[in-house]
Amino acid sequence: MSSFARNQWYAAAWLSEIGDVPFGRRILGEPVVIFRDPEGKICALMDRCPHRLVPLTMGTLTERGLQCGYHGMVFDGGGRCVHIPGQDMIPPRAVVRSYPIAERYGMAWIWMGEAERADPALLPHIPHYGDEGWELIGDGYQHHPSNYLNIVENLMDPAHTTFVHKQTIGNPAAKSEPVKMEKTDDYIVAYRWLHNSPPSPMDKQIKDFGDQQVDRGQFFYYYIPSMSRVDIITMPAGLEKTEENFNKGLRNNSYKFLTPETETATHFFWLHLRNYKVGDRAWSERMHGVFEKTFLEDRDIEMAMQCSQDEAGVRQFVALEIDRAPTVALRMIDRMVRNEAAAEAVAAE
Amino acid sequence: MSSFARNQWYAAAWLSEIGDVPFGRRILGEPVVIFRDPEGKICALMDRCPHRLVPLTMGTLTERGLQCGYHGMVFDGGGRCVHIPGQDMIPPRAVVRSYPIAERYGMAWIWMGEAERADPALLPHIPHYGDEGWELIGDGYQHHPSNYLNIVENLMDPAHTTFVHKQTIGNPAAKSEPVKMEKTDDYIVAYRWLHNSPPSPMDKQIKDFGDQQVDRGQFFYYYIPSMSRVDIITMPAGLEKTEENFNKGLRNNSYKFLTPETETATHFFWLHLRNYKVGDRAWSERMHGVFEKTFLEDRDIEMAMQCSQDEAGVRQFVALEIDRAPTVALRMIDRMVRNEAAAEAVAAE
Amino acid sequence: MSSFARNQWYAAAWLSEIGDVPFGRRILGEPVVIFRDPEGKICALMDRCPHRLVPLTMGTLTERGLQCGYHGMVFDGGGRCVHIPGQDMIPPRAVVRSYPIAERYGMAWIWMGEAERADPALLPHIPHYGDEGWELIGDGYQHHPSNYLNIVENLMDPAHTTFVHKQTIGNPAAKSEPVKMEKTDDYIVAYRWLHNSPPSPMDKQIKDFGDQQVDRGQFFYYYIPSMSRVDIITMPAGLEKTEENFNKGLRNNSYKFLTPETETATHFFWLHLRNYKVGDRAWSERMHGVFEKTFLEDRDIEMAMQCSQDEAGVRQFVALEIDRAPTVALRMIDRMVRNEAAAEAVAAE
Repeated sequence: MSSFARNQWYAAAWLSEIGDVPFGRRILGEPVVIFRDPEGKICALMDRCPHRLVPLTMGTLTERGLQCGYHGMVFDGGGRCVHIPGQDMIPPRAVVRSYPIAERYGMAWIWMGEAERADPALLPHIPHYGDEGWELIGDGYQHHPSNYLNIVENLMDPAHTTFVHKQTIGNPAAKSEPVKMEKTDDYIVAYRWLHNSPPSPMDKQIKDFGDQQVDRGQFFYYYIPSMSRVDIITMPAGLEKTEENFNKGLRNNSYKFLTPETETATHFFWLHLRNYKVGDRAWSERMHGVFEKTFLEDRDIEMAMQCSQDEAGVRQFVALEIDRAPTVALRMIDRMVRNEAAAEAVAAE
Repeated sequence: MSSFARNQWYAAAWLSEIGDVPFGRRILGEPVVIFRDPEGKICALMDRCPHRLVPLTMGTLTERGLQCGYHGMVFDGGGRCVHIPGQDMIPPRAVVRSYPIAERYGMAWIWMGEAERADPALLPHIPHYGDEGWELIGDGYQHHPSNYLNIVENLMDPAHTTFVHKQTIGNPAAKSEPVKMEKTDDYIVAYRWLHNSPPSPMDKQIKDFGDQQVDRGQFFYYYIPSMSRVDIITMPAGLEKTEENFNKGLRNNSYKFLTPETETATHFFWLHLRNYKVGDRAWSERMHGVFEKTFLEDRDIEMAMQCSQDEAGVRQFVALEIDRAPTVALRMIDRMVRNEAAAEAVAAE
Repeated sequence: MSSFARNQWYAAAWLSEIGDVPFGRRILGEPVVIFRDPEGKICALMDRCPHRLVPLTMGTLTERGLQCGYHGMVFDGGGRCVHIPGQDMIPPRAVVRSYPIAERYGMAWIWMGEAERADPALLPHIPHYGDEGWELIGDGYQHHPSNYLNIVENLMDPAHTTFVHKQTIGNPAAKSEPVKMEKTDDYIVAYRWLHNSPPSPMDKQIKDFGDQQVDRGQFFYYYIPSMSRVDIITMPAGLEKTEENFNKGLRNNSYKFLTPETETATHFFWLHLRNYKVGDRAWSERMHGVFEKTFLEDRDIEMAMQCSQDEAGVRQFVALEIDRAPTVALRMIDRMVRNEAAAEAVAAE
């Protein structure tokens, strides 16, 4: 059994990645070609011409659709063949599998499971995206050669920051604060508040707090199976903990979207929203660099871990206290994957 | 079962490739070392010393034969050990498998099957090779990482030219001419005539046709299992279609010899004969460049196709009308391979 | 069954390789991390944190031991976890396999088998190491991508010198001297004496022999399963063959220590002792270069042989007279490996 849930929206490509030539990406183990059809709608097909299996990414975009680079067969966004050079009859088997696509938040989202269940209402929700007073760092992408579950654990786990991110965002003082956990059907959140402390050096760079003390909240949300949201709030000490008050302080929302490429590699998309220094491009560029470097530090660990796990044939020998939230997240994903497999088995009867 | 017929002559190496050091090439999955014996005769052995299996390509050519680079055992062209340093007795197992070799058309041809069936009368025939009034572009070689059947199909298929060879020989106008097909026991030919049309821009560069109209013939021969001949004729319109008249026009004969390296890669040898611009080296060099580039365009498609087919576990999902000739060619090859396997099974009983 | 004997000391790393960061090397198929504990003692652990299997080579050396780079777990030299950040209880499964280590001759020796059998008395013995009047070229290391048995055979085999080492130490005249052989429980030795001959050109460079004739001895010892000692003696002709007299001449002792990395690659450590030109660094550097080049010539052969053997599925097709000593050595190793396997099977009952 694979470790992937299929009946889900996954980040397929940033809209900025989809241009004048067919764009190829392997998703949940399948080769996918993504392109705009003649009407400008983004479409996704399996990246294999049904004739002799030449990848359609080697083709070109024409007025009628995506044209194979070998014999010129043209396919529309639904995967139907609409033209065969030198031949009038289109054989019924001249079709390519197509995948539902939705566009939102600058991203093409793909549904790799049963097409009839691809409901746009199930797309992820990103509060404040596009809102006035919020600044976006978008289009983040890295390739992480590790099973996505290793990355899920990493994203649910504030404890590794001290050791992995020494060079970037690590903070020795953060070592032993107690972490709480809550869960719903959709997500799990691990969080902690640092009450009544002085603002961090970076917070001081952003805003003059005078001698005011702050409360600092760190929320690590994981939306099953593929989205992480880290919500970092610095607010005046003692204020009531409401969304409205959160937004009165400094707020950073960091999103990651994990799309399994194969069982041993993951597309790691990210974006960041903040409610301060709106329009400050220099700050955005600096932050972009810090994030990229930080995620590469994680990638190096995840990659080495994957090799080691592949060789050992197990993922873990011993559980620690810090594994509580990641373990719950992995159990939720596991249940989701098993339910899908069971439903498929029933359907196949 | 492999996809190779073994009781056939295959192109092993251009004579120009065989020099003062042993030459190694994998053929039909087997490592082969090719060299000239002390009398100058080209020989081929399995590329493994029988002692500890060191490749004989790491050895040297001596007055007595091919000497292994590890302990100095010397083998003659028939694979018999003729010298062991420090030892008088030659053990009976000190032999290497040898393969029959024939030299013709600047090429060493190898017979990978039963040696007693290696009849020079079965060598390919190349009309006009070495004839006065004909110019040769020889010694063409490329490595195509694809099963040879993908290349057979490509060589039987004029339809891909429009799409794959846009940058080189492609010609949009050629799109929809009807193609005819004939076959014998040995070969299959797909061809078309364009009657009574103006000469092509390239033909005009070669010869001044005035306002004369021409007939243009394209013949795609495939000699089972490994030789392609493309015969392109531009002759005065209306002339009777005889060999003699063909040679009065402009004639291009392009040959390819496919030698499987493994199930996923092929040695692609080529040569070209023309009956015009004899002795014009500049023209030959220009044409050499065009051919090389054209075949590399094919290689890129074939290579991507092979990866895709390997992953899918099938070669083709749907057949088109243009597949008629290639399908016949592949069926003939398949029959040849199955007959060999059946004969082997009988022999083994 | 693997080809490795486990209850043996193997060269793991030169002490000079073990510095301020954890040192990783694969030994007998297992990933090993080598480091100095806070007291300076060299330790070796399996290179996998028991938590999520991150290689410990990605960690750092701290005052308490080796700290994992992911969540900061700290392990002592015995593989016990001594610290988990943010957690007081150390789970019983938070342990890493440790391997006995001994330090001698500038080398860390590792015992990959049953720890209770790791007796320092079983360490290799290197006469004259560190003695006055003897000069050391130490710290030699090469990676040879071949099963160690191919290298054992090479080291027992003077005959290949003429063919493999043409560019370095080869000597055509040495071709056909008779070789004798002796064996004990621990080692086998193949040797020959060249009596009453003029000194070699190199010997003349080292010492002025006038018109004195010399006896020249070549002893190829192999200590089962992993150490080779080549003892080359040039002494005045006719002197009695005693250790004392050997040392009165020119004497070269070349040691190699073979540590299997995997079934297809070997760590090749070497050192050299001589009783002349003591303190002559220029001579040492020159010799170092000759040795490195010579062993790389062997490596190229061994590497090609391994590929060939892997493909053929056998190591040898025919035995020669020169294989006598190597064959005995391999039989001794084979018996050792089988005895270990049998003892393990009994223990497992």
